Amino acid sequence: MEGEPISALCTPALVVDVDKAKRNAQRMIDRYQKLGVQLRPHMKTHKTLECADIMTGGSRRSIVVSTLAEACFYADHGFDDILYAYSLPFDKVERCAALSERLDLFQVLLDHPDALEQLRKRPLRDGRQWHVWMKLDCGNGRAGVLHSEPEALRLAQAIAKTEGVELTGVYAHCGNTYNCRGVEQIQAVAQETTDFTLQFMEKLKAVGISCKSSIGSTPSCSHPVKDMAQLSEVHPGNYVFYDVQQSTIGSCSLEDVAVRVLTRVIGHCPHRNQLLTDCGWTGISLDGAGKLPTGYAVIEGHPNLKLASMTQEHGRVEPISGQLDYSRYPLGSLLTLIPYHACAAAAMHPVYHVHSGGLLVGKWTPTRGW
Amino acid sequence: MEGEPISALCTPALVVDVDKAKRNAQRMIDRYQKLGVQLRPHMKTHKTLECADIMTGGSRRSIVVSTLAEACFYADHGFDDILYAYSLPFDKVERCAALSERLDLFQVLLDHPDALEQLRKRPLRDGRQWHVWMKLDCGNGRAGVLHSEPEALRLAQAIAKTEGVELTGVYAHCGNTYNCRGVEQIQAVAQETTDFTLQFMEKLKAVGISCKSSIGSTPSCSHPVKDMAQLSEVHPGNYVFYDVQQSTIGSCSLEDVAVRVLTRVIGHCPHRNQLLTDCGWTGISLDGAGKLPTGYAVIEGHPNLKLASMTQEHGRVEPISGQLDYSRYPLGSLLTLIPYHACAAAAMHPVYHVHSGGLLVGKWTPTRGW
Repeated sequence: MEGEPISALCTPALVVDVDKAKRNAQRMIDRYQKLGVQLRPHMKTHKTLECADIMTGGSRRSIVVSTLAEACFYADHGFDDILYAYSLPFDKVERCAALSERLDLFQVLLDHPDALEQLRKRPLRDGRQWHVWMKLDCGNGRAGVLHSEPEALRLAQAIAKTEGVELTGVYAHCGNTYNCRGVEQIQAVAQETTDFTLQFMEKLKAVGISCKSSIGSTPSCSHPVKDMAQLSEVHPGNYVFYDVQQSTIGSCSLEDVAVRVLTRVIGHCPHRNQLLTDCGWTGISLDGAGKLPTGYAVIEGHPNLKLASMTQEHGRVEPISGQLDYSRYPLGSLLTLIPYHACAAAAMHPVYHVHSGGLLVGKWTPTRGW
Repeated sequence: MEGEPISALCTPALVVDVDKAKRNAQRMIDRYQKLGVQLRPHMKTHKTLECADIMTGGSRRSIVVSTLAEACFYADHGFDDILYAYSLPFDKVERCAALSERLDLFQVLLDHPDALEQLRKRPLRDGRQWHVWMKLDCGNGRAGVLHSEPEALRLAQAIAKTEGVELTGVYAHCGNTYNCRGVEQIQAVAQETTDFTLQFMEKLKAVGISCKSSIGSTPSCSHPVKDMAQLSEVHPGNYVFYDVQQSTIGSCSLEDVAVRVLTRVIGHCPHRNQLLTDCGWTGISLDGAGKLPTGYAVIEGHPNLKLASMTQEHGRVEPISGQLDYSRYPLGSLLTLIPYHACAAAAMHPVYHVHSGGLLVGKWTPTRGW
């Protein structure tokens, strides 16, 4: 179908504007080149080779992944310097060891002494070291050792002194930027996360340990504070697509969003003042419930329409106010959804349709599973 | 991994108890054999060949699908008599025509005169007829012509008299049973849907039209009322797995649920009185938000635990009351989630791990896309 307009696709279909994705990626590359900080892009949003090439500028080096399936997928396709930034899962130690013994640089992450013990019990062959990032919780409230707790320093010291294990770096995810509205709030969280991380690096230095530091999240990395220049790395991911959530936070404008879900009208329900469309939760996910006046997505070009509810293969669309003019939405007509959360929408699609200026240029196939 | 216990699986993993699935399927087969009604099982929950064999008793005939991708997948593997029970999407008419010309019996569904016009404009080759079910809305409030509106009869008559098109049947989905609690409420909706459908069949008969009738939903088909014996077919789907939602409605007991998502503890967060697990929304979906005291799932054997929130690859588990006893949940320990909605959980997994009595017996691979 290359060369055809995206309107020729059967729906629902996830489409990626490759020019916007390239522009989003290039801006991030330029931003961190200027700051002198290594950009290590996260693959979790798209999980494709093609988009990884765009985000790494073709180097196929220095990436972060959220699953071991992603790590294997990228390793199988010539990528290296891969950080599996997920609290070491004990059921996957052997698979992690295999990747560590096979790649030039495979890196794991942990936040608990029991995880370190797992690595100690499985020394790598050929004199290789486990490359370990320690996860620090700087206020995000998910994984990581609390930056303020003495056990954080104790764990870092334990990693550093364990035979066969190297403390590669300290890693903080500032997902708490997702509660921000506007650049000022984003930068306040970015500053705080940077401060806590750099303070922790000072504590490490005081006990004779030096290693890398990394923070990340699309909001903070889209609007870095100048102290982030003191970090070794940053690791954002969503920015290559962006989404409505990111535009609401203030990471980007809605025009920067590179991804859409195309859907068609398949039913008129005048007795309920609704349209039915062919995009249910299998096409865009249930992420974003209750977050937007327009429901689970923004319907491009139709600011008065709301994706009010979904079942497996049906979306119910209604006007925010007034009566629907059905003559504007004949059966078969196309609607364009801007997803609330690109990671969640992309996760529902076995293939992404890629276009430039509305004309199809190819397909990207993501990896799935764990 | 066949013969190994399910605890040997890397997590998150969707596991199917094949004995429970077979029992659920056989009960439905027996129930409708006794009633003298054709069971046409819906494939949308699992989308696999193996489970379709179980639901059709190995006949590979008489199924319903929710996407054209499912229709093609089953057709490619020797299934026939397939009903694509989805308001005819105008972008897929040509693909529907190809299946109609290739299979012994491919059936479509519509609920609007414009859809009939699409079929009229694409006559089938070799003197074949389009086999068309008309969708009737008997109170469900999604797709279908309202049973009470004169246009319902008009559309049925138009289908019946259109050249190259056959009115095969009248189809109603009583998804409004999902608002029920208990058998009495379920049967009230089943009775109402049956009444409306049979009344419509009488109207058709009065104008000289006879065709099949079908209603369905897992709650109503799990607890049929006796008048359902007057229908030609029923078309439930979820029952082969069931789930927490179905047990809450009253379709089944929690012991009947054949599907689980296995997850492991990957973090201890005593400062938040939480555990982190390796099942985020990519492993079980966001379906069920706010519906259960135990959050997005029931955690088997741990009635005081709640799956409180999820991000892409993390679940936050906390006690409903009191303090977590972390010694009960060491890092790496397994938790078993009973999904709120099996269709939504299954949709997140590229493969299902099948077991009998806790020992792995194989893998099922679902089809995806549209």
